[in-house]
Amino acid sequence: MSSHTVVALSGGVGGAKLSLGLLRILPPDALSIIVNTGDDFEHLGLRISPDIDTTLYTLADMVNPETGWGQRDETWKFMQEQAQRGGETWFKLGDRDLQVHLERTRRLQSGESLSAVTADFARRFGIAAEILPMSDDAVSTRVATSEGELGFQEYFVQRQCQPAVSGLRFAGAAAARPSAGAVAALGAKNLSAIILCPSNPWLSIDPLRALPGMRALLRASGAPVVAVSPLVGGKAVKGPTAKIMAELGLPVTPTAVVRHYADWIDGFVLDVRDAKYTDEIDMPVLLTDTLMRDIADRRRLASVTLEFAAMLTVRRAIA
Amino acid sequence: MSSHTVVALSGGVGGAKLSLGLLRILPPDALSIIVNTGDDFEHLGLRISPDIDTTLYTLADMVNPETGWGQRDETWKFMQEQAQRGGETWFKLGDRDLQVHLERTRRLQSGESLSAVTADFARRFGIAAEILPMSDDAVSTRVATSEGELGFQEYFVQRQCQPAVSGLRFAGAAAARPSAGAVAALGAKNLSAIILCPSNPWLSIDPLRALPGMRALLRASGAPVVAVSPLVGGKAVKGPTAKIMAELGLPVTPTAVVRHYADWIDGFVLDVRDAKYTDEIDMPVLLTDTLMRDIADRRRLASVTLEFAAMLTVRRAIA
Repeated sequence: MSSHTVVALSGGVGGAKLSLGLLRILPPDALSIIVNTGDDFEHLGLRISPDIDTTLYTLADMVNPETGWGQRDETWKFMQEQAQRGGETWFKLGDRDLQVHLERTRRLQSGESLSAVTADFARRFGIAAEILPMSDDAVSTRVATSEGELGFQEYFVQRQCQPAVSGLRFAGAAAARPSAGAVAALGAKNLSAIILCPSNPWLSIDPLRALPGMRALLRASGAPVVAVSPLVGGKAVKGPTAKIMAELGLPVTPTAVVRHYADWIDGFVLDVRDAKYTDEIDMPVLLTDTLMRDIADRRRLASVTLEFAAMLTVRRAIA
Repeated sequence: MSSHTVVALSGGVGGAKLSLGLLRILPPDALSIIVNTGDDFEHLGLRISPDIDTTLYTLADMVNPETGWGQRDETWKFMQEQAQRGGETWFKLGDRDLQVHLERTRRLQSGESLSAVTADFARRFGIAAEILPMSDDAVSTRVATSEGELGFQEYFVQRQCQPAVSGLRFAGAAAARPSAGAVAALGAKNLSAIILCPSNPWLSIDPLRALPGMRALLRASGAPVVAVSPLVGGKAVKGPTAKIMAELGLPVTPTAVVRHYADWIDGFVLDVRDAKYTDEIDMPVLLTDTLMRDIADRRRLASVTLEFAAMLTVRRAIA
């Protein structure tokens, strides 16, 4: 283990980008990423973990750069057959991608934990970071909408986030335990920072926060908890964060995100385009460019976020 | 239902070729093919029915003409990933082919029978014949070899039929029932012929014959039972029939095949290259060219085999 370790809490595409930045600037084995599994579902008999796969593919430099999810150089013969035979096609499964889903499904059915399977995938993909499912227990994000309650993938992929969201619940969360890996990573003696990645707070980070004991683990760690804003200039870079905030009756502002995270975080990384909100935010703020266009951006944002966390640690020590 | 129906008992590649010939010359819905399921196995968590798939693909004109199994215009991205990740690669699963395996696996797990799934596949593939699994109960062909007992696919695909065969057993057969579709097809009032396709008698036809009640069903049908020789000029067209016969201590002759089928059959279709064996065979023989190089050969062999069966019916009526 490295002398200082970092834990990232992450959803899919946006979180994985910052995780890649952290991976590239930290020593090997210093990074643990606790990944949302509320999006996990069974489809065509396969056990699919979209945020874990996006994290794996991104950190292994295998991700499709156009979409941010799925593998690059993917082919779609399976999907073409599926379409031709009248099967479901709303969730895209590439031919390469299928190998991951099939192997995970087989191993879960044979009794391995999602944590064990994910750790083995990360090792075989050559990723020098821990990728930790938030829980080995089933948690299912359910979206209350104008069309009734939908499963996460129904809402997100099949309905393309069209229905207006009136609420969210994380079925199973109350009885779920954080994974042993997550507990260990958050309990590491040399943990220097906990980063809430710029994933959708309501869809991707809240399932992690809904796990009993998670907040206590963060607090007990003693490490500063820093959230990176998912909004840039009042908009989400990708995905429905802004739309959902509006539908939930919230102002679409970083301030509302900070209030949502309330007493979970010690500091907030705010995009320079949203500088006007600085005074509204009643906690330490780092103002920086949070847009991650390329790998240099990811490394830089990871770097300044860790420096900000280190500053919070020092500030706390001398307070 | 057609006024006269035909039942074929079939294994994989060779049986499917003759089945296609029968399909092309018979009126729609006159043909039922009872297919060996002793080769079925679970692999990578998928339920695979090789002989059923070969029959489906052949009859739907989707089969790879080079191999006689698998789909034409197949791609192999899934297998490449599987190889790259250190997974098992000895059983080839094409990207298109995977759609069939995944859908079958999902539907079997949800409680549908193999018969129901197969019938739906045949319908969706536009096949105007019944494709009937021999049984909806599990039967597993086990091969006793010089290297110990092997599962069928281990022997056939993984070990490429290299180990010497000393015996065969069909695990589960004693407790298995012929499928309801097979019982109905063999019990049809207007059944005019039962054809044992030129599949490997020991590996592909014997599992069907091992089902309790199957012989009684054939006898009760009253239709003549005709076997088409799997040997052409003392050799198997494809596969290990000749090798297995020698390893089992049998002469590699059509006569030995006829003796193996013993009182199951009423007539035998012998290849012209093996004319010298005619006198050894103590039952009606049709001497013809049984080699099926192209679709014209398949239609012709199907046609003369049905004429031969009709002749046996007449002969029995006037005896």
